[in-house]
Amino acid sequence: MAGAVLALDIGGTKLAAAVVSPAGQVLAEGVVPTDPSCCPPEIIELLFAMSEQALEAGGIRWRDLVAVGVSFGGPVDFPAGRTVTCHHLPGWEGLPLRDLIAERTGLPTMVDNDANAAALGEVTFGAARGCQHVLYLTVSTGIGAGLVLNGQIHRGANSMAGELGHTLVAPDGPRCTCGRIGCLEAMASGPAIARAAGEALAAGAPSALQAIPPSQLTARHVSELANADALAARIMQEAGEYLGQAIAGAVNLLNPQMVVIGGGVSQAGEVLLRPVRAAVRRHTVPQSLRDLRIVIGQLGQRAGLLGAVALALQEAASR
Amino acid sequence: MAGAVLALDIGGTKLAAAVVSPAGQVLAEGVVPTDPSCCPPEIIELLFAMSEQALEAGGIRWRDLVAVGVSFGGPVDFPAGRTVTCHHLPGWEGLPLRDLIAERTGLPTMVDNDANAAALGEVTFGAARGCQHVLYLTVSTGIGAGLVLNGQIHRGANSMAGELGHTLVAPDGPRCTCGRIGCLEAMASGPAIARAAGEALAAGAPSALQAIPPSQLTARHVSELANADALAARIMQEAGEYLGQAIAGAVNLLNPQMVVIGGGVSQAGEVLLRPVRAAVRRHTVPQSLRDLRIVIGQLGQRAGLLGAVALALQEAASR
Repeated sequence: MAGAVLALDIGGTKLAAAVVSPAGQVLAEGVVPTDPSCCPPEIIELLFAMSEQALEAGGIRWRDLVAVGVSFGGPVDFPAGRTVTCHHLPGWEGLPLRDLIAERTGLPTMVDNDANAAALGEVTFGAARGCQHVLYLTVSTGIGAGLVLNGQIHRGANSMAGELGHTLVAPDGPRCTCGRIGCLEAMASGPAIARAAGEALAAGAPSALQAIPPSQLTARHVSELANADALAARIMQEAGEYLGQAIAGAVNLLNPQMVVIGGGVSQAGEVLLRPVRAAVRRHTVPQSLRDLRIVIGQLGQRAGLLGAVALALQEAASR
Repeated sequence: MAGAVLALDIGGTKLAAAVVSPAGQVLAEGVVPTDPSCCPPEIIELLFAMSEQALEAGGIRWRDLVAVGVSFGGPVDFPAGRTVTCHHLPGWEGLPLRDLIAERTGLPTMVDNDANAAALGEVTFGAARGCQHVLYLTVSTGIGAGLVLNGQIHRGANSMAGELGHTLVAPDGPRCTCGRIGCLEAMASGPAIARAAGEALAAGAPSALQAIPPSQLTARHVSELANADALAARIMQEAGEYLGQAIAGAVNLLNPQMVVIGGGVSQAGEVLLRPVRAAVRRHTVPQSLRDLRIVIGQLGQRAGLLGAVALALQEAASR
């Protein structure tokens, strides 16, 4: 397979290395849980070992590769190819990750943050194929956005575009992990959904969720019960409304063709999409709603990885 | 003067025709109040008469012109060169304005809505010269935004990008002219500022504004008294906070280098900018604040006109 790309995914919960065809077909892939006590050199060594295995499993030689793409779970100074920080792993401040990998592999290498990569992944290989203007949201432990405008990732002045998770949606809401009050992430992320459910249960709300030990309650429990349990339904409804409110603001501003929702919480599917769509309809100007589609991502956990492939292919083609 | 551009501005309150040098110098200009009873053909005839006068006053011949740029006070289907509608004038639904003017003048012609044009104007000739990523807001009878991203106007899928005025900022707020509740435009536009002042005065709030007959009270009265009158100060403060909240959402999403505020209300200057900046600081992620500047536009009422010049020059250069 000539023209294959090595794709790496460095996240707070998992590490992945895959060999991917130019058409986005994953030829071989290794995934391991992230050990949060590992330092960056250890993680990079592990990824190279996983890459060797993936190459062997896929029957691909290093010299068949045209580029390396990396999806990183934290902000990236894109022009410099440096990680800025990782909210879940120590030691990633200002690491020249792009050059480290390019020097070791001798291949064109691109590094971008996971939300940007996932947005490009869905545009290139997933739900938003053929779209020029796409808002991608990842709803998971945090909430981030990736923007594809005119077919290209929009990164902004300091590679910081996409921080939709820290948009104010609830002036009287709880404090966010970022320190501010009422951010979208504090109202609609996985932990926010679990917290809202936990608070209602602690206050004695009748619900099948009472059967789950409070310390083990997750957003997945809530979403899985949302079609059968009034409390779970209400909590998904509220989270969806806040998401929809923030999405409406972004749609008014950017007029995309499509909004793609990914990340773990997006697996909730219709119980999340329904209130999101209703809130977007309520808060968006009609002309921007006309052709808008709001869908769940098609690439699941591989969105970032496949976006890194798309980015690497763009770079290889430009040389 | 070779390379000059004819610039037209069609708005709900004024019509303008100007001859402008490629460097953005206005060589001659005519401005008249808009007669809202005029139909589009009458307005176009009037603009051509004003254009003849401006050409004569500037000592420019038609054949010296390289292009025509038009700033239109309403949504424009940009690829088609058609006006979509005008909220202040009748008869502009689906008018092929670009082709009408291009056929009559024989010149490359570009038509865009006024907020887009003003954004490009400030980037090309005004406060945001040299910036790649700029959010422009016009705060006037309505509130609209123009986005310049990577040096180009971002229009979105249906040429509808920039509707920041209809972003929800006050869930318990009053009804907006668009029919929705609590839009930014309902909280911080000129009429919203005048309305908030009028309501407080009717409720008996002590203020120097009590001297103004209620039916004549405008946002200008409020902003001009804001440094000397507690009620006027509070009302400008609240409007600025809502503006800042919406701007923060856009900055989190887009990470621009600069926010430029234009439109009539922006003449309030620091009494508006101070609460805007404070609210943006409060609701924006720190990395996107670092290099951000928030300023009043430099081009005033000519921002749209000069942006139309920039757009026309881009088009002429591409042929």
